[in-house]
Amino acid sequence: MQKNYLDEAAKLVASVRKAKPLVHQITNYVTVNDCANITLAVGGSPIMADEPAEVEEIVSISQALVINMGNLNKNTIEAMVLAGKKANEVGVPVIFDPVGAGASTLRTETAKRLIKEVKFAALRGNISEMKTLNQGGGSTRGVDAAESDAISQDNLQEATKVANSLANSTGSVVAITGPIDLISNGKECCYIKNGHPMMASVTGTGCMCSALVGAFCGSTEDHFAGTIAGVMAMGLAGERAYEQCQAAGLGNSSYRNLLIDEIFLMTGETLLKGGKISCE
Amino acid sequence: MQKNYLDEAAKLVASVRKAKPLVHQITNYVTVNDCANITLAVGGSPIMADEPAEVEEIVSISQALVINMGNLNKNTIEAMVLAGKKANEVGVPVIFDPVGAGASTLRTETAKRLIKEVKFAALRGNISEMKTLNQGGGSTRGVDAAESDAISQDNLQEATKVANSLANSTGSVVAITGPIDLISNGKECCYIKNGHPMMASVTGTGCMCSALVGAFCGSTEDHFAGTIAGVMAMGLAGERAYEQCQAAGLGNSSYRNLLIDEIFLMTGETLLKGGKISCE
Amino acid sequence: MQKNYLDEAAKLVASVRKAKPLVHQITNYVTVNDCANITLAVGGSPIMADEPAEVEEIVSISQALVINMGNLNKNTIEAMVLAGKKANEVGVPVIFDPVGAGASTLRTETAKRLIKEVKFAALRGNISEMKTLNQGGGSTRGVDAAESDAISQDNLQEATKVANSLANSTGSVVAITGPIDLISNGKECCYIKNGHPMMASVTGTGCMCSALVGAFCGSTEDHFAGTIAGVMAMGLAGERAYEQCQAAGLGNSSYRNLLIDEIFLMTGETLLKGGKISCE
Repeated sequence: MQKNYLDEAAKLVASVRKAKPLVHQITNYVTVNDCANITLAVGGSPIMADEPAEVEEIVSISQALVINMGNLNKNTIEAMVLAGKKANEVGVPVIFDPVGAGASTLRTETAKRLIKEVKFAALRGNISEMKTLNQGGGSTRGVDAAESDAISQDNLQEATKVANSLANSTGSVVAITGPIDLISNGKECCYIKNGHPMMASVTGTGCMCSALVGAFCGSTEDHFAGTIAGVMAMGLAGERAYEQCQAAGLGNSSYRNLLIDEIFLMTGETLLKGGKISCE
Repeated sequence: MQKNYLDEAAKLVASVRKAKPLVHQITNYVTVNDCANITLAVGGSPIMADEPAEVEEIVSISQALVINMGNLNKNTIEAMVLAGKKANEVGVPVIFDPVGAGASTLRTETAKRLIKEVKFAALRGNISEMKTLNQGGGSTRGVDAAESDAISQDNLQEATKVANSLANSTGSVVAITGPIDLISNGKECCYIKNGHPMMASVTGTGCMCSALVGAFCGSTEDHFAGTIAGVMAMGLAGERAYEQCQAAGLGNSSYRNLLIDEIFLMTGETLLKGGKISCE
Repeated sequence: MQKNYLDEAAKLVASVRKAKPLVHQITNYVTVNDCANITLAVGGSPIMADEPAEVEEIVSISQALVINMGNLNKNTIEAMVLAGKKANEVGVPVIFDPVGAGASTLRTETAKRLIKEVKFAALRGNISEMKTLNQGGGSTRGVDAAESDAISQDNLQEATKVANSLANSTGSVVAITGPIDLISNGKECCYIKNGHPMMASVTGTGCMCSALVGAFCGSTEDHFAGTIAGVMAMGLAGERAYEQCQAAGLGNSSYRNLLIDEIFLMTGETLLKGGKISCE
């Protein structure tokens, strides 16, 4: 019998708050503060360390590692490889956010190298990034998905194929986020219809989602369920924050705060009532 | 007949939202998140890439490049030069924000080097920074303008001379922002009297203004009009945010959010009603 | 007769706003924006420069230097040593925040090296970090204090010993912050009971506290009083922001803004009414 992933996600909200996982993040200087605050909001403890000289030690005391490619430089690439390998060695789950894969040769090559050298528990990105990882296919517009690529009812089947194929070739849970979110483990694929278009007006909602996936995967051995919980919590927070933002006539900067607030305030019950998921 | 720059600025609000320019920014880790969010607020798409290995590729797919000197290191200086030259080659307009020019030899020398090696569409800074660029003159107090330098009715004529002279020697539009903002193309000089003193209580209002100038200049070939639109939008947002901040008894951190919100909510009509500009 | 440190702190609120000290901060990219905004909120002027090529020049025009170890790399370690030594030479007070000392060999060794090579006006950290500095003792959980270490009425005496011992061995004012804050100059020890547990849900409240200590110590030669003022202002702002946050049903991201706002809005009178301090 298929697991009820909505129930699972709701239970994980309590688990992550109890476990307080230390989430080591090697990420970018653009959205790092929001990633740290959303990690705290969900109940985790963030540590942002990217100096090659210390990352192996730091990841060894952590419960999850998130590698985010939002701002690459030679030093952090080295740190990503070292920390990823060490995490694999000591059994810490690693989440990969290949920000901008396809936008430059450096990003595409780095993403491919990381996938080759590190075993990831989960990959999370937009459809353009995931197509790039799957076959070098997707067209990318900077760090956002190309509009032609955006997931809708029309191309859902094609996106599902990308997710399943990438999940099978990497052995990772694959989350493709967008207007509809897909999460595949290569056998099952779940669709989440939470979220709001205004999330695209805030920098780093993708990065924050990956941070949440990290916190959840640091609290359960079922990384498929953990990834679902992270993606669903993010989408639902985006919806709920939009209602308040709209009511008060606020813009994207206040929306960012309300969104993180909603994660802070979220309970299993909120998720149970608001989560929109179907699996096949 | 002289262009009506208020009308132009109002029209550009719609243009930038339609064009969604990709704005490549090589900037500092202090204010980078606000720069990204204000770029999204105005309708652009930000990409913050500063690794020399990828900046030429990134700038080639962008509609504007903003170089901000807020936090220099050897790696980013190299990236600035590479990206700036490439932008000139492929016809992408480059905006330069010489943060802290005059505050250290490194900053002054880097600013001079960039102006020598890169052709800028626009320069935006405070009066102390601009005096430094013009003649090595201004006295600087860290990254803020020296109080003795602040533009007022008394020294407006002198500031106009600085702006015109720098515009003529560099071939760039020059924006000197402060209590009164000046924008010169060497022939015409416009004065904008929007803004609020509370803007000085938020880090990065200058950087955010430069990001807006980048987004506007990425949507029009008239960089004088684009620079005016960016500076005026920033000032008006600062005014409008202050009213709300004051009414609610809030401080500088909430003010920052309200200011970015106001850019998100801004329409051509808002600008048309609130913009205070005179040109000669 | 013992000084009345509550009166002193209240007076310093006006002093810092009048002096507008330039506070040079070599810090981390996670919380740097909040540190800059809280420095502005209290009345100081922040400058975040960490390139070895310019830090000596920058610190020479500053009134205080804050060294924060939140995100180390080889380049910033060199900048910290250079700036710290220069500050000692030109008489600028230096504040040290040994974030994560004990969490990795790199951090512990860097903290020890800095304490050996630089004379600090004040050290501020959590109990785990301070135990590490004092004797290599404390157990650390990432960048937060180990729960077993948290200061309460039960282990206050032991924490006082750590503070006094470290103050005497380094000649620095020592501030250990937590549920109860301790500030020692080796002879006197003051206890501050302001603050709120929700402060632990925001990244960088420790860093922001150190930035405040920097601004206050840049406005007075009495660094014991300056450190007390910074720690007390932070705690009281945390309390006051919590009341608003609670009343409005907001989460940790809005709380962060309200907390910085409270520093912006703080007067000597607020501190005089709300400050909870006892000294022995």
